[in-house]
Amino acid sequence: MTSSITPFFSPKGVVVIGASTSPEKLGYGVARNLIQSGYRGAIHFVSQKSGALFDRPLYTNLDDVPDPVDLAILIVPTQSTPQTIEDCAKRGIKAAIIVSSGFREVGAEGAALEAQCVELARKHGVRLLGPNCIGTLDTHLPLDTTFLQPPMPAQGGIAFVSHSGAFCAAIIDWAREQGFGFSQIVSLGNQADVNETDVLPEVAKDEHTKVIALYMESVSDGVKFVQAASEVTKHKPVIALKVGRFEAGQKAAASHTGALAGSEAAFDAAFAKAGILRADTAEQMFDWARALENCPLPRGKRMAILTNAGGPGVIAADSLETNGLLLSQLTESTLKALTNYLPPSASVHNPVDMLASASPDAYATCLNLLLQDENVDGVLVILPPPPMYKTEEVAKAMIEVISKFEKPVVIALMGSTLVEEARKTFQRANIPTYPFPERAASALGALARRAKHLTTEHAESTETQKRISVASLADLDELLTAYGIQTIPIKLARDENEVTAIADELGYPLVMKIASPDILHKSDVGGVLLNLTDAQTLLSAYTQMTERIKSAMPAAQIDGVHLQRQVPEGQEVIIGMVRDPLFGPLMMFGSGGIEVEGLKDVAFALAPLNQAEARSMIRKTWAGRKLKGFRSIPAVDEESAIDVLIKLSHLAMDHETVDEIEINPLRVLAKGAVAVDVRVKLRA
Amino acid sequence: MTSSITPFFSPKGVVVIGASTSPEKLGYGVARNLIQSGYRGAIHFVSQKSGALFDRPLYTNLDDVPDPVDLAILIVPTQSTPQTIEDCAKRGIKAAIIVSSGFREVGAEGAALEAQCVELARKHGVRLLGPNCIGTLDTHLPLDTTFLQPPMPAQGGIAFVSHSGAFCAAIIDWAREQGFGFSQIVSLGNQADVNETDVLPEVAKDEHTKVIALYMESVSDGVKFVQAASEVTKHKPVIALKVGRFEAGQKAAASHTGALAGSEAAFDAAFAKAGILRADTAEQMFDWARALENCPLPRGKRMAILTNAGGPGVIAADSLETNGLLLSQLTESTLKALTNYLPPSASVHNPVDMLASASPDAYATCLNLLLQDENVDGVLVILPPPPMYKTEEVAKAMIEVISKFEKPVVIALMGSTLVEEARKTFQRANIPTYPFPERAASALGALARRAKHLTTEHAESTETQKRISVASLADLDELLTAYGIQTIPIKLARDENEVTAIADELGYPLVMKIASPDILHKSDVGGVLLNLTDAQTLLSAYTQMTERIKSAMPAAQIDGVHLQRQVPEGQEVIIGMVRDPLFGPLMMFGSGGIEVEGLKDVAFALAPLNQAEARSMIRKTWAGRKLKGFRSIPAVDEESAIDVLIKLSHLAMDHETVDEIEINPLRVLAKGAVAVDVRVKLRA
Repeated sequence: MTSSITPFFSPKGVVVIGASTSPEKLGYGVARNLIQSGYRGAIHFVSQKSGALFDRPLYTNLDDVPDPVDLAILIVPTQSTPQTIEDCAKRGIKAAIIVSSGFREVGAEGAALEAQCVELARKHGVRLLGPNCIGTLDTHLPLDTTFLQPPMPAQGGIAFVSHSGAFCAAIIDWAREQGFGFSQIVSLGNQADVNETDVLPEVAKDEHTKVIALYMESVSDGVKFVQAASEVTKHKPVIALKVGRFEAGQKAAASHTGALAGSEAAFDAAFAKAGILRADTAEQMFDWARALENCPLPRGKRMAILTNAGGPGVIAADSLETNGLLLSQLTESTLKALTNYLPPSASVHNPVDMLASASPDAYATCLNLLLQDENVDGVLVILPPPPMYKTEEVAKAMIEVISKFEKPVVIALMGSTLVEEARKTFQRANIPTYPFPERAASALGALARRAKHLTTEHAESTETQKRISVASLADLDELLTAYGIQTIPIKLARDENEVTAIADELGYPLVMKIASPDILHKSDVGGVLLNLTDAQTLLSAYTQMTERIKSAMPAAQIDGVHLQRQVPEGQEVIIGMVRDPLFGPLMMFGSGGIEVEGLKDVAFALAPLNQAEARSMIRKTWAGRKLKGFRSIPAVDEESAIDVLIKLSHLAMDHETVDEIEINPLRVLAKGAVAVDVRVKLRA
Repeated sequence: MTSSITPFFSPKGVVVIGASTSPEKLGYGVARNLIQSGYRGAIHFVSQKSGALFDRPLYTNLDDVPDPVDLAILIVPTQSTPQTIEDCAKRGIKAAIIVSSGFREVGAEGAALEAQCVELARKHGVRLLGPNCIGTLDTHLPLDTTFLQPPMPAQGGIAFVSHSGAFCAAIIDWAREQGFGFSQIVSLGNQADVNETDVLPEVAKDEHTKVIALYMESVSDGVKFVQAASEVTKHKPVIALKVGRFEAGQKAAASHTGALAGSEAAFDAAFAKAGILRADTAEQMFDWARALENCPLPRGKRMAILTNAGGPGVIAADSLETNGLLLSQLTESTLKALTNYLPPSASVHNPVDMLASASPDAYATCLNLLLQDENVDGVLVILPPPPMYKTEEVAKAMIEVISKFEKPVVIALMGSTLVEEARKTFQRANIPTYPFPERAASALGALARRAKHLTTEHAESTETQKRISVASLADLDELLTAYGIQTIPIKLARDENEVTAIADELGYPLVMKIASPDILHKSDVGGVLLNLTDAQTLLSAYTQMTERIKSAMPAAQIDGVHLQRQVPEGQEVIIGMVRDPLFGPLMMFGSGGIEVEGLKDVAFALAPLNQAEARSMIRKTWAGRKLKGFRSIPAVDEESAIDVLIKLSHLAMDHETVDEIEINPLRVLAKGAVAVDVRVKLRA
């Protein structure tokens, strides 16, 4: 399958426009790398001066470049870029990497030039990578369109896609020392045209790519990104490092949901929906990537620790728990076999501590026993330099065992000089090593989460729903009722007569709320009264409330009061939605009331939600966990809360004009749940 | 100042008992290291066979070893250890490092042997380090009593004290590659005698030690440790990696405080009290240690970022916030100077992005401007390999600038091969480098917390308090009142007559609670009724409550009901104390009521508390933050809550027989605070 961006990844011929014979120029570096990479297609150079470079002619005119050529690398003055794009189109080249900088990143003038490039490219059907990028790199094809200092990174199964070119360069250099390689590297630059969402599926197609690491500063189209990534993560793991967490200031929000839902909550929810593992640091991203590249996935979360020293074993046990994993309970037969094999003072219970005297054979034998154990889903081996043996001998003995099982084994290989040979030995056998137990445990955690993702069903935004229409969105009750969300009719009473008439219609007990477009948080101003049981109480409450608020807020428009039948006791939660500008409807669930923003006991997820997603969201909050009862708090109908959450997510998918909607509180009853108060904000 | 453990750190003469001429034996390794270390005192060897080793005689009898000798290193069979200790005492040697294992760590028999060693040592006034340890190491003295493979670690200012010998060995090897050194290393082993609390002040005395890193699996005497460490941290920073976080199972607790206060909460509180920085991982511990060893402390939290690439700058900005730091607002004059100096497309606002073209001079000039800025307390410099310059040239240019200021500068030196020379250049200038911005920011955070510790006053457990005695601890009201904590008298009514009489005495409105030794959580069983406003309501409530509970819990002993005057509305919090077995009174503050254990909105600190400590504890919880008011929740008397917390901490210090005490709720009023319900558990 080819697409318009295929030439960036497997071109038939490449032309460097702006090739240079001066070794300090980028145009020399790109030419050198193309040749040194061993790229098997055609390589051509275009320059202002004719001559030769690396035994190839320097053409002064792109038209003279012979076939095949379908990818151009532009290292030309910023101002000449539009003309060069036209030249490419004329020559039939439909893909161009623009290395030059000086575009959008430097201000308005550059942005205009960039826009001009995109316009020309669209017009002529040319795809652009960059500008302000360092190009692409494929260690297997091979192909290197960058100007980075050789050598190329080692071959490997990690594809790295990055918004930052500087970050690419630093990571490539760092990876060399760390001893891991890449399948592909793509520097996206300003993403004037081709963006991370275009590249992700293309990179995933590469058979050499086992895992994709993504460095993101933003997202071009959130909804498309989640769709594309969801497809990719069905087959290959994706890890993202998203930076700019603390950048965005708080925006003015019309609801609690809006106030709490920042762009970070939306990114978290988007990654969760797409099945992308989100790393906290660059180091962590590649720690995980190396495990995902090389290890089989665990069938569960029960891990064993094998060590020759107590201290690091304890660190490992702590770290397993931190990463959501469990210490396996070894079976009786494993315990018996370990007891028979190990010296009496060893500890056969997980963490299995063989003591400092452990030989290569001991490591191999015990590891074999642990991997055989049906209660063990994976093993973290701790290997500081053994006092009596060479570390690499231990490595060799273990590698043979590891290869026999389809279970992940990660090694905390502690030290440096004394374990260097062992590190290389493990590396050759594709077994990931980490300098400390904490990092090894974190990698095991990523494997377990990846395994879980593959068995969890995610609701997809493409799923067909029965779109429900209502006459007017203004009638909230009708809308919610249409989606099967129970509300309690609320009526506006504008004077004492209406108060009495409506009370007769609804029945007692009643709740009264001030009706004013100017008062957002009603209970803040004494605008809510509960448990009004008879006409007399009701009328005096009406008089008091309206008079008090009129005198307290003389500028506020008071339309009267809203009356509502009081519902039975239950547990109150908040369910809300804001339409995230990047990712669409973002659902919130949590502790409601007036303390929402203080308690911050809330969880977010992207709509639409299915049962599993809604349940997992609810369980992340204390408000959700206590629905099943806690101490004297009786259990209520958790399923109803889940149901409302799902239905509200469908409503949000169906009605794009609903910008924010918030049920606060949703009262969850012994049976059923009722939206007591609902606030909606429609698109302006 | 010398103490009984001084010979471990600066012996006049050392004897290796169990020296060996076989290079594969530990007794050879220790002898070799002692000599190779360059130790300037006397070195003697004792062995079973006479002869010579490293040109020194092998004595077969310890008595024959000439003066000076005040430290023995024992590498003898486990069973011979007690006899060898006696031999040492006879020869006048009062300090012995026991390298051998096979003691407490292998079971009951070993434990008995270890106890015998300690008994003999106490009897003869001999101090023991170990057993099951790898000894000590001092790079400056120099002295190496270990058997680890040479070379010794590099000289440095970090002292490392460790419960795990294997961890020592791995760290020493790792540090070599990382390029940092140590002042001293102490392996504590089983701590049969000398423990971490003994060693900490001794190590701190060493003028070469700038910072102490502590690997802990437990603590020998928590109270003494906190006292000793508090003294040390007044002068030198201490970082601890405490492992075994998830080890302890939950114990049965008599209160919410007891249920929530695990040993980890106590360790956290103890480290906070002692001014110890707690690291999460080994890598982090040494990342922090290198900064604390080499950097001046910042005067505040406002940090600047200097970078030549946008992406890593964003990562750094995120990480500063994660570590509790702020991005400085640069002064107008700095902004102007940066604007004049940098190209127009550079970003002069913090993070300052000089663009990829930044020269060594640009780095130096901009760093100088940032360090001059009064709004900048420290700088994080990002240095990936610059495309056009050698990284080490940038390093050299910056070092000159850094040395002129008393502000911390840390470098995120990204890459490996291309930055290796720069790394060494920085290292020689004692400027810490980190491979990623996240780790550099974490180090800056540690510096800022260290600086804050030095300006924060901590209440010390040695402070004299006016110990208040009460006739009987059983009278809780009396005890609390004596400490100035306001309670509301509570009276037991055993029948209807007493209910009426007590109500007349206390006045309305009243609260009624079931009185039963068998019912711990009264409201769970409907054993609490509020707002009883008159005699009729009261009596019917009495009948209903007692009858309902009798029928619901026929086995429970019902003594009647407790009556109490109902206090005005306010905000309710929980204040509790449990006596931690290691660290003594551990105070808790947080959201009270019945959801304490679910919400987990609580903070812990060790008693006694001063104003600053109590305030900081309160501010860590939402319950504490909202005392100053939130939305429609009116502000209450925060100072009163702080006051009660401090007073309860004094009560706990004074009365060792109070094992747990919990005020739940403490109702904080507009003015003052009242203990509404108090539960106490006295020592059995």
